[in-house]
Amino acid sequence: MDAALLYSLNLIGVFVFALTGALAASRKQLDIVGFAFLASITGVGGGTLRDVILGATPVFWITQPAPLVLCVATAAVVYFLAPFVEYRYRLLLWADAVGISGYCVMGASRALDAGASPFSAVVMGVVTATFGGIIRDIVAGEPSVILRKEIYVTATVAGATLFVLAILFGAPFWPAALLGAISAFIVRAGALAFGWTLPIYRSRPGRAFPPR
Amino acid sequence: MDAALLYSLNLIGVFVFALTGALAASRKQLDIVGFAFLASITGVGGGTLRDVILGATPVFWITQPAPLVLCVATAAVVYFLAPFVEYRYRLLLWADAVGISGYCVMGASRALDAGASPFSAVVMGVVTATFGGIIRDIVAGEPSVILRKEIYVTATVAGATLFVLAILFGAPFWPAALLGAISAFIVRAGALAFGWTLPIYRSRPGRAFPPR
Amino acid sequence: MDAALLYSLNLIGVFVFALTGALAASRKQLDIVGFAFLASITGVGGGTLRDVILGATPVFWITQPAPLVLCVATAAVVYFLAPFVEYRYRLLLWADAVGISGYCVMGASRALDAGASPFSAVVMGVVTATFGGIIRDIVAGEPSVILRKEIYVTATVAGATLFVLAILFGAPFWPAALLGAISAFIVRAGALAFGWTLPIYRSRPGRAFPPR
Repeated sequence: MDAALLYSLNLIGVFVFALTGALAASRKQLDIVGFAFLASITGVGGGTLRDVILGATPVFWITQPAPLVLCVATAAVVYFLAPFVEYRYRLLLWADAVGISGYCVMGASRALDAGASPFSAVVMGVVTATFGGIIRDIVAGEPSVILRKEIYVTATVAGATLFVLAILFGAPFWPAALLGAISAFIVRAGALAFGWTLPIYRSRPGRAFPPR
Repeated sequence: MDAALLYSLNLIGVFVFALTGALAASRKQLDIVGFAFLASITGVGGGTLRDVILGATPVFWITQPAPLVLCVATAAVVYFLAPFVEYRYRLLLWADAVGISGYCVMGASRALDAGASPFSAVVMGVVTATFGGIIRDIVAGEPSVILRKEIYVTATVAGATLFVLAILFGAPFWPAALLGAISAFIVRAGALAFGWTLPIYRSRPGRAFPPR
Repeated sequence: MDAALLYSLNLIGVFVFALTGALAASRKQLDIVGFAFLASITGVGGGTLRDVILGATPVFWITQPAPLVLCVATAAVVYFLAPFVEYRYRLLLWADAVGISGYCVMGASRALDAGASPFSAVVMGVVTATFGGIIRDIVAGEPSVILRKEIYVTATVAGATLFVLAILFGAPFWPAALLGAISAFIVRAGALAFGWTLPIYRSRPGRAFPPR
């Protein structure tokens, strides 16, 4: 049953990332196939990179079509319903927040299962959570979400770290996973709602960047 | 003999994509090594991603150098002959059309061989066909070809779907492959020659996009 | 001992690429987690692609955390010290030069070990050396370093080719590796110090590029 639950949670992650891909397609005014394409590569992109890096090939969407069907269905719904949604970019950001919260834990968990060191597992969680969005932004020609000033990657670092630490301290899977995912979501939600930031790097006052 | 024929067709796909990479290099006024680099990553990029996702590693150009030699030779020819070609960007688009038509079938076929579900095989065909060009456009700093208004991804969806359906209905490989590849080419050629499009997504009239 | 030495050299490569990633983060004025993220994907990006293409999965940073720890530590040092460095973009370019010189040899060497053809091994060296920087530039939203006019990819082609040729002619590993890496560095250093270029492609005089 736990495997079934985990599988369902994975599909939720695929769904919310597919949603952000379809919303990006609506900003680019693509046709419905463009919606499906961008939804699919965003929905399964992070998990595909995770499987490839860990050597878990063929990757998760090859033998079972469910994640892809979900992506395409999500794209179709967004294509027809998005005109009635008032704040699509806000919706994209919040869906993305749900997605990264789940995926930073799932990426770290899969890495631990594959024998990764704790530190590597945290990085794997961060990579899994962020690369779907990075691929979406690159292909859609949008500025990458990780270059935004408010906290983003930090949320996935926090979530993956808390999950891995909890597992190391002997916690069972589900409490650890919930701790990680909820923490990541709170951090990212704070960034979205209140503009939370970490101090950004500043060069010395009065110094211009060297010319390229 | 069929394997030899398939191998030759694969090389044709590598060649036309390498051609588009070299033509993109000419637009960027790179040196001859830049031509070879862009031709190579475009020529073998989609197939590399396909092999990596399916777990068919080392990928196809590691043990046999022929695809890479072909890419480099194509780059050298384009470097010296391109100044005599009047409409290079049109040529790039038509060569790309030939490439995606062949690759959407080959990607789907390899996926089926690896035990993919029919739906996953179609997606694999689309990914194999489109990612060479996506990598080319990203590395060359050009707007991605999939963001163009006229039909592009749709052609690969059509070709891969018809191929997979034909195989499911018991057709032998070659008729199915020809059906898929020719259909994809017709769709893309229609888009290039007559500007075929699907209806693009439009937000409600009078609604501005929310500020970022 | 040779394995230990090779491992140490690999860490030096990871370090210099992480340095360039962190310096790119300073140009983008990211926060400290952004520094660590960009340093990590640049530091291990090329080697990850190499391992994935060769099928050496899980990739090198999964079971041992040392490369990642090094990336994060480098990012932290740069975050605090970069304001005191006068010419950061020059430093980025020189660190990158050291990195590509080592990685073009290591990539080619790993490929030969995996049974690659000599030509494929050279390409693998070039890909390993250049893709860390390509990923860095894409994610940071900077124009790709391979589009610059002065010699870049050419240095890695020279280094990887000399290394593979030396091995083919029976040279022991270390002399061959030093020959390759030093040659690559000299070529790239000449480009940085004296603006060395290869003749760039030029279209015929008086011919405009066709409109897109």
